Amino acid sequence: MVLAKVVGTVVSTNKEPKIEGIKFLILEKIDPKTMKGLKDYVVAMDSVGAGQGEIVFYASGSSSRMTRVTEGKPSDAAITAIVDNIELDGSLVYSKERGDM
Amino acid sequence: MVLAKVVGTVVSTNKEPKIEGIKFLILEKIDPKTMKGLKDYVVAMDSVGAGQGEIVFYASGSSSRMTRVTEGKPSDAAITAIVDNIELDGSLVYSKERGDM
Amino acid sequence: MVLAKVVGTVVSTNKEPKIEGIKFLILEKIDPKTMKGLKDYVVAMDSVGAGQGEIVFYASGSSSRMTRVTEGKPSDAAITAIVDNIELDGSLVYSKERGDM
Amino acid sequence: MVLAKVVGTVVSTNKEPKIEGIKFLILEKIDPKTMKGLKDYVVAMDSVGAGQGEIVFYASGSSSRMTRVTEGKPSDAAITAIVDNIELDGSLVYSKERGDM
Amino acid sequence: MVLAKVVGTVVSTNKEPKIEGIKFLILEKIDPKTMKGLKDYVVAMDSVGAGQGEIVFYASGSSSRMTRVTEGKPSDAAITAIVDNIELDGSLVYSKERGDM
Repeated sequence: MVLAKVVGTVVSTNKEPKIEGIKFLILEKIDPKTMKGLKDYVVAMDSVGAGQGEIVFYASGSSSRMTRVTEGKPSDAAITAIVDNIELDGSLVYSKERGDM
Repeated sequence: MVLAKVVGTVVSTNKEPKIEGIKFLILEKIDPKTMKGLKDYVVAMDSVGAGQGEIVFYASGSSSRMTRVTEGKPSDAAITAIVDNIELDGSLVYSKERGDM
Repeated sequence: MVLAKVVGTVVSTNKEPKIEGIKFLILEKIDPKTMKGLKDYVVAMDSVGAGQGEIVFYASGSSSRMTRVTEGKPSDAAITAIVDNIELDGSLVYSKERGDM
Repeated sequence: MVLAKVVGTVVSTNKEPKIEGIKFLILEKIDPKTMKGLKDYVVAMDSVGAGQGEIVFYASGSSSRMTRVTEGKPSDAAITAIVDNIELDGSLVYSKERGDM
Repeated sequence: MVLAKVVGTVVSTNKEPKIEGIKFLILEKIDPKTMKGLKDYVVAMDSVGAGQGEIVFYASGSSSRMTRVTEGKPSDAAITAIVDNIELDGSLVYSKERGDM
């Protein structure tokens, strides 16, 4: 899975019928060392109710279809967790409660 | 999924029989922050009737075979949505109606 | 799928039995804008009879196993079409009949 | 598979139900020649009890779901081995017992 | 598939039970034009008895599980052929018998 920040949304009227009603979020991958965005973006389906600005991780490829929301759908990226804490080399580098550290 | 712009078409007579009758579009990936092309191209099968110049997103890998058009076919990229609006950090950065902003 | 040029061949005697009798071609990915090679190579199984110097596109991953030639085989890249024409931004940038333009 | 070092952990309360109870480790890919980190990170599910600082390899994509821990789960990266020894060009470049060499 | 050179081995005692008894080789991807290593490494399962210094190609992703050795196992890279000859643009650039050319 890859760590990323929810930075936006995509709206589409004309789309493959199977993905009607799904929320499409734009994620920017982040470097966990600095918690900075990497200017590398992906559109992911949301299966956990993630919101703008939240740190998440998402699953790619066929694995992204293993959630209740994405099963059988043409999904190649699905958010599977909203991150509470990230610990690197024994130090807390991110805490959702306290924001970036 | 990845955001991209439809920039061209590919025509092939001599091809795997399973993909007869499918439209092959050339997509250029875009940076949603600037809406500029990234000079990174992919050939995608079209399942939504996308046209030249439109902003779309496409699904990669086995997920690209989860549409009515691509099921069971040797597809590793399929357009699954024509994009109406892109919102980044709370601002509308693209609106199909109004073009790039 | 990715656009590429057939630039070579690989011969192997000692190989996984399932891929006996299959032709392995070396492809160099190309930039459709310039039609130049990107010095990025892949070995693909051939399902359409592609020859040296031809422009093709190939399917990657599990999708590459969806052809008559590659079904059930350890293939992660299969040529699925020989390209006749490429049109970019409304202009013909490649025509097989006439060569690079 | 890719060689990497366990450098951290991710904790998430709000996640896809299927991945409840799984441990998420942050891995930094390493260059086996220098054994240095490549500043390229991935979040992997742990199926072997790997710990902070250990050298491991992980499987990506659908292959990451072929372990007892990850079967049927939205996993695109799973640690499948803790590395004891790495030999490159006939020399031992890493030994778990002795640490980096 | 990707061309690579066998440059090392990985030994692991503590690993996913399904991959007991499999040989893990470190491959360095090569540029077929120069036959030089690209300093890009992958750990592959061996299904063809490849040895140190040999030029091989390997299959990635789910395709790497389509060999007798890797079926059903958490493999995302498997050597499927030991290369005898590579021909580029009509010239023999590698011959196993004669070594690099």
